[in-house]
Amino acid sequence: MLDALFQPRSVAVIGASSRTLSIGNRVVRNLVESGFTGPIHPINPRPGELWGRSCVPSLDDVADPIDLAVVALPAQSVPQALQACGARGVRAAIVHAAGFAESGPEGAVLEHRCVAIARDHGMRLLGPNAQGVMNADPSVSLNATFTFTPLRHGVVSVLAVSGGMGEWINQHLWRAGVGIRRYACPGNAADIGVVELMDAMAGDAGTRVLALHLETPPPAGPFLDVVARHRDRVRMVALTSGRTGPGAMAVTSHTGALAGADQAMDALLARAGVLRLEDTADLVRVVAAMTTVTLPVGRRVAVLCNAGGPGILSLDAAVEQGLEAARLDPATRRELERTQSPFAAIGALTDVAATAGPEAMADAATALGADPGTDALLLALVTPFFVDCDAMARQTVAALARGDKPAVVALLRDPRFESVASTLAAAGVPVVDHPEQAARLLAALARARELRRQAAERPALVPLDRDAILAVLARSVPDARGWLAAADAYRVLEAAGIPCAPWGPVTPDGPHPPPGLGWPVVLKADVSGGIHKTEAGALVTGIHDVAGFDAATARLRARFPGRPLLAQGWIDGVEMLVGGIRTACGAGLVGVGAGGVAVEALADVSWGLAPLSIEEARRMVDRLRCRPLLEGPRGLPAADVEALAALVVRVGALLDAVPRLVELDLNPVRMAGPGAGGMAVDVRIRLAPRGGESGGVS
Amino acid sequence: MLDALFQPRSVAVIGASSRTLSIGNRVVRNLVESGFTGPIHPINPRPGELWGRSCVPSLDDVADPIDLAVVALPAQSVPQALQACGARGVRAAIVHAAGFAESGPEGAVLEHRCVAIARDHGMRLLGPNAQGVMNADPSVSLNATFTFTPLRHGVVSVLAVSGGMGEWINQHLWRAGVGIRRYACPGNAADIGVVELMDAMAGDAGTRVLALHLETPPPAGPFLDVVARHRDRVRMVALTSGRTGPGAMAVTSHTGALAGADQAMDALLARAGVLRLEDTADLVRVVAAMTTVTLPVGRRVAVLCNAGGPGILSLDAAVEQGLEAARLDPATRRELERTQSPFAAIGALTDVAATAGPEAMADAATALGADPGTDALLLALVTPFFVDCDAMARQTVAALARGDKPAVVALLRDPRFESVASTLAAAGVPVVDHPEQAARLLAALARARELRRQAAERPALVPLDRDAILAVLARSVPDARGWLAAADAYRVLEAAGIPCAPWGPVTPDGPHPPPGLGWPVVLKADVSGGIHKTEAGALVTGIHDVAGFDAATARLRARFPGRPLLAQGWIDGVEMLVGGIRTACGAGLVGVGAGGVAVEALADVSWGLAPLSIEEARRMVDRLRCRPLLEGPRGLPAADVEALAALVVRVGALLDAVPRLVELDLNPVRMAGPGAGGMAVDVRIRLAPRGGESGGVS
Repeated sequence: MLDALFQPRSVAVIGASSRTLSIGNRVVRNLVESGFTGPIHPINPRPGELWGRSCVPSLDDVADPIDLAVVALPAQSVPQALQACGARGVRAAIVHAAGFAESGPEGAVLEHRCVAIARDHGMRLLGPNAQGVMNADPSVSLNATFTFTPLRHGVVSVLAVSGGMGEWINQHLWRAGVGIRRYACPGNAADIGVVELMDAMAGDAGTRVLALHLETPPPAGPFLDVVARHRDRVRMVALTSGRTGPGAMAVTSHTGALAGADQAMDALLARAGVLRLEDTADLVRVVAAMTTVTLPVGRRVAVLCNAGGPGILSLDAAVEQGLEAARLDPATRRELERTQSPFAAIGALTDVAATAGPEAMADAATALGADPGTDALLLALVTPFFVDCDAMARQTVAALARGDKPAVVALLRDPRFESVASTLAAAGVPVVDHPEQAARLLAALARARELRRQAAERPALVPLDRDAILAVLARSVPDARGWLAAADAYRVLEAAGIPCAPWGPVTPDGPHPPPGLGWPVVLKADVSGGIHKTEAGALVTGIHDVAGFDAATARLRARFPGRPLLAQGWIDGVEMLVGGIRTACGAGLVGVGAGGVAVEALADVSWGLAPLSIEEARRMVDRLRCRPLLEGPRGLPAADVEALAALVVRVGALLDAVPRLVELDLNPVRMAGPGAGGMAVDVRIRLAPRGGESGGVS
Repeated sequence: MLDALFQPRSVAVIGASSRTLSIGNRVVRNLVESGFTGPIHPINPRPGELWGRSCVPSLDDVADPIDLAVVALPAQSVPQALQACGARGVRAAIVHAAGFAESGPEGAVLEHRCVAIARDHGMRLLGPNAQGVMNADPSVSLNATFTFTPLRHGVVSVLAVSGGMGEWINQHLWRAGVGIRRYACPGNAADIGVVELMDAMAGDAGTRVLALHLETPPPAGPFLDVVARHRDRVRMVALTSGRTGPGAMAVTSHTGALAGADQAMDALLARAGVLRLEDTADLVRVVAAMTTVTLPVGRRVAVLCNAGGPGILSLDAAVEQGLEAARLDPATRRELERTQSPFAAIGALTDVAATAGPEAMADAATALGADPGTDALLLALVTPFFVDCDAMARQTVAALARGDKPAVVALLRDPRFESVASTLAAAGVPVVDHPEQAARLLAALARARELRRQAAERPALVPLDRDAILAVLARSVPDARGWLAAADAYRVLEAAGIPCAPWGPVTPDGPHPPPGLGWPVVLKADVSGGIHKTEAGALVTGIHDVAGFDAATARLRARFPGRPLLAQGWIDGVEMLVGGIRTACGAGLVGVGAGGVAVEALADVSWGLAPLSIEEARRMVDRLRCRPLLEGPRGLPAADVEALAALVVRVGALLDAVPRLVELDLNPVRMAGPGAGGMAVDVRIRLAPRGGESGGVS
C-alpha cells in the first residue's frame, strides 16, 4: 500500500533549487543526507550539481522510472507540474506548497484540479500543503520532507495532520534517543487521507508503535477497521487538538459541525483501543516506553525509592492518576525485611534509604517484582555519592529483567552519574526526570492495556425490528428542523424495543384520558423539539381524576392551539437521561447522565460510540459522578443499573441501525429499583433531511 | 535570624574523614568547593589535610570562634559531640545522621537529649536527619550539605522538609540555569522548624522567590504571619506530598491526625497567598519564570505561532488550564492585517505561518502585546530553516520588552538554533519544550497574581457574642466523644447569630408541640452525634396536627428511650451543608457543599480557612460543581447565595473564636430565594476534651 510514497525506487524533485534557504534545496539535501538508497533526480533547468547530484532540466531527461515526485513549486505552478508527472508515469507526488483549500475558495478550486489531474493518471497525491514522508527502513532510508530532524531508524511511526506537530513529536523522539520507522504529514489530505496512511504505516512490519496527531475525528468505520487490523501487533497512541471551543474554532470555522466532536473523538479512540493523551511531553514518553516495556496487567503499583520524599510524591501522583497502592503479600514483606536494613520502610512505598547499596536495591526490586499483588514498579531513585550507583543500575536492571513486571524510573542524577540513566535506558527501562512523569507514564501504560482488553469486546447483539422503525419514519412528517412529532417519536422507541411510559394521544372525540394509563396522569402539549416542556408550561403533572384531566386539556389547548396533546401514565424512579447524536465523522455517539431538570445543570454525562458492548455501557454508567446515587444511599431509592446499561446499548443499536436518525434524547428516563427496569418518560427525535442519509449535526 | 546557620563566620566539621565516600569527607569538600569565605576546620584526630584544609584533633584546638558545626557522626555519637560544641560556644549545629525520632521510640529519646543539650547551651540545632543548608550569597558562599549540585548564585531560596526533594528541586533548577540564594532541609526539625527557616530565608534581601516542599501543614498562625511579612517582596510556591491516603500514610502512621490534612494544606496555602503546585517539573518551571516575569493581571491569553498545529494545541491547553482565549480589539486586528501576510490567521490564535520573518513576528508580538483585551502571550514557535531565527528571537524579545505583558514561549528548535532558546532566556522570557507546559506555566502565574490580590482581603468582621457562646458551653455536658446535646448545639448557633429553624424541646409536661413552630412540624430524637438521623429513623417529618405530633412523640419515645426529643418548624429551601473542623495544624477549616441526603454522595464540597473574608466565602460557593443549581435553572427554586456566603463566614468566625470547638456540621441548611436568607435545620457540634483547648481531630 502506498509503496510509491514510502518505498519509491527513485525520487525526482521538481523545483530543486540552488538557493540553500529554499524548500526545493532542502528537500534534495534531506534526501541525500538521509542516505536514500535509490537515485535522486533534482529537476532544474540550469545544469549543475545539487548536494552531489546532477540536475536534469526536465522529468523527460530522467532515464529511470520515477516512483515519487516531490513538487517544491508555488501553488500556481503545481497543476502543470503534476500534469508532467502524470504523463511521465510518476506513481506518487508530494505537494509542499500552501495556498490551496486551506486558504479559501480559489485555493479549493486549484486543489480540486490537482486531484483531478492525479486521478486521471492513476497517480497518488500527498497534500497539498504536506510536509512529506519519511521511511527510516534501512533498505529505503527516505526523508522526503523539508524539516530538520535527522533520520534515525527505529520502530515508531508518526502520522500527524499538522506538520508542525509531526516535527514537534519527531524532534523530541530524536532528542529522547528514540528512532522512527515511517513518518507522514498529509497536509490538506486531498487524496491520500489519514486512514489510508495509518493502514500503510501500521501495516509495515517494522512499525511497532504508531503515534498519531489528529484534529477532527476520522471517518469512524474505516478508522475502526484499520485499527482493528493492526492493533494486536502495533501499539497506537493519539494526541488530538481542537479539544476546546476556542481550539476547535481555530481548526475550522465550522464550529457547528464540531458539536460533540471532542466527545466523538474520545469515544472513537476508546472504541478503537487507541490510547489518547493530552500532553505532548507525555506522548513522547509513552511512545518511547512502548518500544520496550510490557504493559502492566493491572493498576496496582509499588514504589521503590532510596529517598523518602520523592517516593511519597511518586505514590501520591500514582494514586492521583488512578493507579492503586499495592498491598504487599506477607511473603514479600518477609523477604524485604530479610534483605533490607532496619531503617528501610516496607510497603506500597518501600524506602530502602540512601545508604542502600547495589545488592539491597536489586533485592528489593526482585522481591517487589515477584509480589503477586503488584502489577508494576515505580522506582524513584537518587544517586548518593557514597553508593556505587553504576553497579546499582546494572544489578537493578538484571533484577527487573528476571521478573515480568514493567518498571519505570524517576531518576535524579548527579551529572557524574549520567551513566545510570543510560544503563537503565539501554536495558529498555524507561527513565524520566520526575516522580509525576513516572506516575503518568505508568497510568498510561495500564490504560493502554485496558483498552486492548476492551477492544476485544463485541457490540451487544440487540434484536431490532428495523423494518418497523423505518415504517414509522416513512409515515412521519418531521418539522422543518427534522424533529418528529411526539407520537411518532414514542412509536420509534416502541419499535426499537425501548420501554416507554404508557401513553396515548388526546383527541377531541377520543376517550379522556386515553385508556390503560392508570392514575395519576401527565398531560403534555407536543411543542417543537427544541423547547423545554417544563419551562414552556407545556406539561401538567399530578392529574388524579377525569375532571382534572379535562381542565388540564382545556388549559393546554388554549395555550398551544393546534398542537397535538398526549397523555402519559405516571412512572416513578431515579431520573436519568440517555441520548444520542450523529457526529460529523458519521458515528453515533450515545450519552448517559444524571437526568431531569435539576441535575442537568451539573453536566454529568458520559459518552460512548454506537454500537456499544454491554461492558462499555456499564463503564459509561460507572464513570458518572452521580454513580453513588444509583446505589440508593441513605434510604434513597436505588436504580436498576443493569437495565440502564441495557437501555444505553439499545439506544446505540437504534442509532447504528438507522443512519437518518441524527439526534435522540430520552430525558428523563426513570429507573426503578434493581431488577425492576426503567422507562423513558419523554423523548425527542430528529432526522436528517431526506436524501442526506448520514448527515451529521450541523 | 539564624545567622549562625546561614552566615557563619567559620565552620567546623566534626567527623571530617579522609574516606572519600563518607559524608564527613563530602561535607568538607562541598564547603571548600563552594568557596566558603570563612575558615573551615575539619576536626579529625589524625593530623593531615583534607581538600587543602588542615585537620585539627578537636574543637578546642581551633583558635577562631566557631559559629557553625556540622556533625557528621553516627547517631549514638551525636549527643557527646553536641555537648562539646556547646561547651566550645558553637552557635549552631547541623546533624546529618538518621536514626532519631523518625526511626522509633529509642531514636526519639536520643533526639530529645540532643535538643536538651543544644538548649542548655543556647545553641541552635538543624536536624537531626538534616541534609543541611546553603547560602549562595557571594559574601558567604556556603554549602553545608553532603549533596552534589554545585552552588550557583541566584535569587531562589529552596526549603524542603524532604532532603531528597530539596536536592531534586535544586538539581533541576541548576540544570535549568537558575541560581539559588538560600537552601535548607531541616530533616526532623527537632529545634529549628519550617516556619522559622521560612522567615530567615524569605527575610533575606537576596531572596526573590521561595520554593517550598511540605509534607504536613505547618502551624497555621505562625505560618500566616511569616508569609504575610514577606509576600509583597518574595514570590512563594509550594509542592506538597502526602496528598493522597496512601501518600499520607507514608508520611506518618497517624492517619487519624491527617483527616482533612490535604484540604487544610490547600486552604492554608491559598489563604497565605502561596501558590500550590502538584508537579515537580511545573514547580521548577514556575520558579524559574518567577525570577524574571511580571505576573499577568488576568487570564486572557493570546497565542502567537508560526505553525498552526502547535498553536491550536497551545490554545486548547490554555483553555483547559482555566485561561481564556483573548478577544482581540478591532485595532489589534487591523494592525495584524496590515503587518502580516494574507495567509496569516488572526485572532486569539494568531498564526503568522512558518514563512514569517523576524519583522513580521516582532510586529505580531508588538500588536498582541498592546492589545487591551490580552493579559499574557503564549508563543508556540518552530525554527524554520529558511528564516533567520536568531534575528527573529532578538526582534521578538525587543518587541515583548516594549510591552508590559508577560510572555512564555514553547519552542521547538533545530539543534542548530539552540541559540534561539538562549536569546529568549537571556532576555528573561521563559522557554519551555511543549505547548502544554507553556499553558500550565501561564495559568500558574495568573493564579499567583490572583492569590496576591486575594491575600490582601481581610477576614469579615463578624460581631460574635463569645461570652454567650462560652456560657452555653460551660453549662453543656458533652457525651464521651465530645458531642453536644442537640439543644445545646442549637443554643450555640443562636448565640453565634447563625439562623436556625425555630425549635423547642419536647418534655412530658410541656406544651405539645412547643409554641411558635407553626405547622407542619418535624420531630427529632437527639441520637448521638455520629449517627445519621434519617437512617436511624430518629426523624419524623410532615406532622400537621397535634394528634400526629403526639403519635410521633410516642413512637420516638418507644424507639429511643431516654433520649431527649426536639420539635422544629418546617423550613423550605435549597439544601446545602456548611461545616467546620479543626485540623492538626490548629486551623479551623470551613466547608460548604451540596447538602441533604442525596447530593452528599457526590462529595461536592469546597473548603476555606477560618476566619474567612466574604470574598473567599463567595469563591468557595462559586467553586462548587452544583453552583449552577443555586441560580434556580429551569424553574427550580433559586438560593440566596449571598446569605449562604455570609453563613460560611459566620461558621468560620465561630470556629476561630472558640478553639475548643473541633467539629461543626450544619446539614442541611435550607436556603430560600435571593434576599430571603436561609436557616440551619440540623446541627452537630463536637468539643475537644476539657484541657485540650486546641486539640485537633484525632
